[in-house]
Amino acid sequence: MPALSIVKNTAPEDVAFKRRPKNSVKGQQTKAAIVDAALGLATHIGLEGLSIGVLAERMQMSKSGVFAHFGSREELQVSVVREYHARFEDEVFQPAMQAPRGLPRLRALFNNWMERTAIEIDQGCIYISGAIEFEDREGPVREALVTSMTLWLTALNRAVVQALETGDLRPDTDASQVTFEMHGLILTLHYQARFMRSADAMTRGRTSFEHLLARCLP
Amino acid sequence: MPALSIVKNTAPEDVAFKRRPKNSVKGQQTKAAIVDAALGLATHIGLEGLSIGVLAERMQMSKSGVFAHFGSREELQVSVVREYHARFEDEVFQPAMQAPRGLPRLRALFNNWMERTAIEIDQGCIYISGAIEFEDREGPVREALVTSMTLWLTALNRAVVQALETGDLRPDTDASQVTFEMHGLILTLHYQARFMRSADAMTRGRTSFEHLLARCLP
Repeated sequence: MPALSIVKNTAPEDVAFKRRPKNSVKGQQTKAAIVDAALGLATHIGLEGLSIGVLAERMQMSKSGVFAHFGSREELQVSVVREYHARFEDEVFQPAMQAPRGLPRLRALFNNWMERTAIEIDQGCIYISGAIEFEDREGPVREALVTSMTLWLTALNRAVVQALETGDLRPDTDASQVTFEMHGLILTLHYQARFMRSADAMTRGRTSFEHLLARCLP
Repeated sequence: MPALSIVKNTAPEDVAFKRRPKNSVKGQQTKAAIVDAALGLATHIGLEGLSIGVLAERMQMSKSGVFAHFGSREELQVSVVREYHARFEDEVFQPAMQAPRGLPRLRALFNNWMERTAIEIDQGCIYISGAIEFEDREGPVREALVTSMTLWLTALNRAVVQALETGDLRPDTDASQVTFEMHGLILTLHYQARFMRSADAMTRGRTSFEHLLARCLP
């Protein structure tokens, strides 16, 4: 069942991206709306910029109203990471599962990731900003971020391995190395386009991927 | 004169990394000590985490004592970026200038950058954290960071071009693409080693560089 593939092939404790039971449909909707607003804020100002107060203002709710849906600011931050993960899975991962295993699927994953990154050049990306904010900070927010990133890189790596198995890539290809380099070109593209405002970073990213594939073709 | 090479070949407005005239030797020493402490803090908590108050406490000085050396918090942040730039130049760039032009110098630049990055896996790096903090924030701190990064990538790119000119790399090599990919492998290495605590990121980074060179060899 491709619907769970990012989550599959990981240790059980990593498959924790389930929401708590909700009290009511209305309560669920309100909570979802708060998380949506929080994610919108976090991409711009970072997860650490989030506060119950700022969100209450944005939602035109009382602080205690927002607080009722989350036991703590940390729980709110974790909910934002999980929501981001769910959207990333829907936009980047799932559509690529329609493509046949092997190079077509790997290309689809890369293209979808590039499209997502192109949007985030304007918006920011919590996988990148969160990595800086929580590099030294232990706790559930860091854990949620690392789990999410690990799930994604594992799913990507699986697509590379499948491309070896189908014979689309050379059998001696080091799949983890390919995954590492794909991650790298997205990070550089984001850095140079978003921070340095370089105009040709998207093209450079695509060129890097073609060089990477050319090296691994049979 | 290699001593100025990072700064050369750039527009005059980019060559602004000069300190203000100092009032006294003692004043200079105190200011340098404050910047040193501020840089140590900023690598861990980010440039935005710096405050005159925190620094005064760290230096066991009064707030007004620290404030006397910097007109504003922003000026302090810019001084930290310039100090970081000067150290990066001393540790990464200058020693590589002893190596002959071409592949030896390019390898030396890469090796020195890797050594610097290995240290920053423990400490943090203000070129990476600063890029996140100031991606959307205009002003002199952002400008200092972008200038510094541009100077470094320009210097690196020049070494790649020289390696084409000496015939160490194929004449049809796209130098800017090589520079982009070198930047990428450092960013991934930092992300995966520092944030995800991956044990093999240094090795992956070195392997990426060898693949990159192999593609460009005559």
